[in-house]
Amino acid sequence: MHPSSQAAVMNFLNEIASDFPSAISLAAGRPCEKFFERLSPEALLNSWHRYEHHFAHGTDLANARAQLLQYGRTAGIINDLVAQHLRIDAGVPASGDRLLITTGCQEALALCLPTLCPNFTDVLLVCNPTYIGATGAAYTSRVTISALPTDVDLASGIERSVAQLRRNGQQARALYLIPDFDNPTGRVLDESQRRAVLAVCIRERIVILEDNPYGAFRYEGQAIQPMAALDNAGCVIYLSTFSKTLSPALRIGSATLPDTLFGNRAARQTLWRALVQRKSFVTVNTSSIAQAMVGGILLDQECSLQRWIQPVVDLYRSNRDTMLNQLETIFSPLADQIRWNRPSGGFFLSIDLPFSFDARAVTECAANYGVAVMPMSFFALDKSQDQRIRLSFSAVDQQQINTSVAALGRYVAQQIGRNQRPSTEVAAGF
Amino acid sequence: MHPSSQAAVMNFLNEIASDFPSAISLAAGRPCEKFFERLSPEALLNSWHRYEHHFAHGTDLANARAQLLQYGRTAGIINDLVAQHLRIDAGVPASGDRLLITTGCQEALALCLPTLCPNFTDVLLVCNPTYIGATGAAYTSRVTISALPTDVDLASGIERSVAQLRRNGQQARALYLIPDFDNPTGRVLDESQRRAVLAVCIRERIVILEDNPYGAFRYEGQAIQPMAALDNAGCVIYLSTFSKTLSPALRIGSATLPDTLFGNRAARQTLWRALVQRKSFVTVNTSSIAQAMVGGILLDQECSLQRWIQPVVDLYRSNRDTMLNQLETIFSPLADQIRWNRPSGGFFLSIDLPFSFDARAVTECAANYGVAVMPMSFFALDKSQDQRIRLSFSAVDQQQINTSVAALGRYVAQQIGRNQRPSTEVAAGF
Repeated sequence: MHPSSQAAVMNFLNEIASDFPSAISLAAGRPCEKFFERLSPEALLNSWHRYEHHFAHGTDLANARAQLLQYGRTAGIINDLVAQHLRIDAGVPASGDRLLITTGCQEALALCLPTLCPNFTDVLLVCNPTYIGATGAAYTSRVTISALPTDVDLASGIERSVAQLRRNGQQARALYLIPDFDNPTGRVLDESQRRAVLAVCIRERIVILEDNPYGAFRYEGQAIQPMAALDNAGCVIYLSTFSKTLSPALRIGSATLPDTLFGNRAARQTLWRALVQRKSFVTVNTSSIAQAMVGGILLDQECSLQRWIQPVVDLYRSNRDTMLNQLETIFSPLADQIRWNRPSGGFFLSIDLPFSFDARAVTECAANYGVAVMPMSFFALDKSQDQRIRLSFSAVDQQQINTSVAALGRYVAQQIGRNQRPSTEVAAGF
Repeated sequence: MHPSSQAAVMNFLNEIASDFPSAISLAAGRPCEKFFERLSPEALLNSWHRYEHHFAHGTDLANARAQLLQYGRTAGIINDLVAQHLRIDAGVPASGDRLLITTGCQEALALCLPTLCPNFTDVLLVCNPTYIGATGAAYTSRVTISALPTDVDLASGIERSVAQLRRNGQQARALYLIPDFDNPTGRVLDESQRRAVLAVCIRERIVILEDNPYGAFRYEGQAIQPMAALDNAGCVIYLSTFSKTLSPALRIGSATLPDTLFGNRAARQTLWRALVQRKSFVTVNTSSIAQAMVGGILLDQECSLQRWIQPVVDLYRSNRDTMLNQLETIFSPLADQIRWNRPSGGFFLSIDLPFSFDARAVTECAANYGVAVMPMSFFALDKSQDQRIRLSFSAVDQQQINTSVAALGRYVAQQIGRNQRPSTEVAAGF
């Protein structure tokens, strides 16, 4: 990926939204706003109050309130509550003393990447395509990125990349991965794939950054254990966020370090101190007001958000089914040329098209068909994704899904017709 | 400064506070908590509501509320209100379209330094001593720091540094400066000094990062125009924060770019886009909830916080006077050996001692005398500050000031006595 293209993507999507405000957006990976009602200012005030009492330990409430408005601990204050939440809801063996509260999960990436890859020969491995925020954080902190090959399984690809990098005098130090309902592909790694990736990363001493923003949104089937739970060697940093389960406006995420780093507890502690130091020079500490709001909700929900998000999961599942049904209806006449996946969770599905879909196509779709979608090439590090698009079904209603997929169908049919016309004309000329 | 020493300072001070909880701290530069009452959860809820109505422009309030809980604009949403606040209260010619809202002013530093100094030969100039957060942000983003000489005036020091760096193949690209009530020294640059610094920076094309966390807290005399107001060449980025005027827990700061960068508006726009891009990969956007709270207060106060902070200014002035009086009382017997400054604003004063005051001295003072102070060497890039300490008078009451300065006096007297004893004993031996 060209270093500046992440910014170009962001700017471009904002421009599309502002130039074509009536276009239905299947492009943005935003949570549904319908459930924000439960996060009204009054509700968040109550959560803040609940956390204040917890923070005061039944003693000086006025002092607790003042401390929550003061500079706070760099590593965070709701660490134990978030750790318990991750143990209950995600099965991650988290502990508050090695869980760093961050200003959204993006800050966790911005802290971890340069800390894990301090030397110019250190490399971050990423899937291709992958989340823009990870490659962007690497770019801004001058960490070299290497895209894993797409023609072999993940574990084999890591081995091949490690060997190639070594021949160039480079070392793979970290791997960024979304094992559950990947952004942008929607892919899930099964347990054997996770174990295979763990085995090669342990052997090569590569730290896995397991990002899991969508794991709570599973629509069918059994949850697979997170890599942080399968890890018994001290190889996985688990990244989490409340942006999708609660609200992005809280800007609360976390990074949970393993108990030991490859069996070495002192090394983990050194890594912890380096991350805390770096955080102190990026944002000083995460807003204690926002932490208190999240902490109060966790206290109220006994640290499990499963009940809280159940109606959201039901809505997203229903949206996914609507989108899959409409894709079937609209694209069945083109079934030999168009394929898409059926994601078992998350916000996204991907479609393979028989033609390239680039920035110009986004504009044409938005302007003439009233639907904005995301070219998969925006997430790619090479040209392999040029004929794919990502559709998000999280922030639209069912009527919008039906309307926009139908519109996309008209665009695709017109494109295929346009591409086929020359050969047809040649045939007609005979 | 040793690269890791900033973290060591932070850890060390936290340990002192936790190991000696009964020691009175004159070390931390925290705002007084007494006035946090005006920022109760209920009050901030009201501010949030006020901003919601403003944000809705009198139309769809439910939609405005939802948008404030969603992902937000990377550059911020309360930019125009903050720009107006800076125009009214600080005399800065700010404009919302070139004012970036950041997660506290620390993030502004973390964004500006690597953006202004992208090459390995680029250098950030800093005063010696200077604020740890600036050198820390430079260190974490791998920006080379150069300390200005202390034996000449600032403008001459910049000229000399630029010439020396040039001989080494390096370029001074930016200057970090707190012209009003400097942290840690309390120093103020007068208008002619500001104009002299501007002249040399314009000539050498050095961007000035004018940090002004304490400017609103002036206890006597006339305000001096900020360098951003004196700048007519497009050379100053003005950094601001609500951590001292409102609360550090909001984590809201800003960076205001000049209208042009050295006369070039396209270059300023390129810098703006680079900063916004970098922010998107560090914290995505600043919490809209926190922005709404600050925005609501600004709306309520008609964008001027002068009335709001007046009681705080009065308290800090009174604290400063108490500290100056007690220093006079306690140290007058040692007037030939101890000197301190009389700051006209801000949170800090500095004391010159006749002996070195290091980390061991901090521990001894806290453990045996019940007072924690800050060695100036913690902010220094060489040994020139070893015999100085910084005292903060913002977060203590008058009785604590009197008690702790008296205790410091006993420590100092004992140290001077200890230092003098050997020569006395030699004399007695005669």
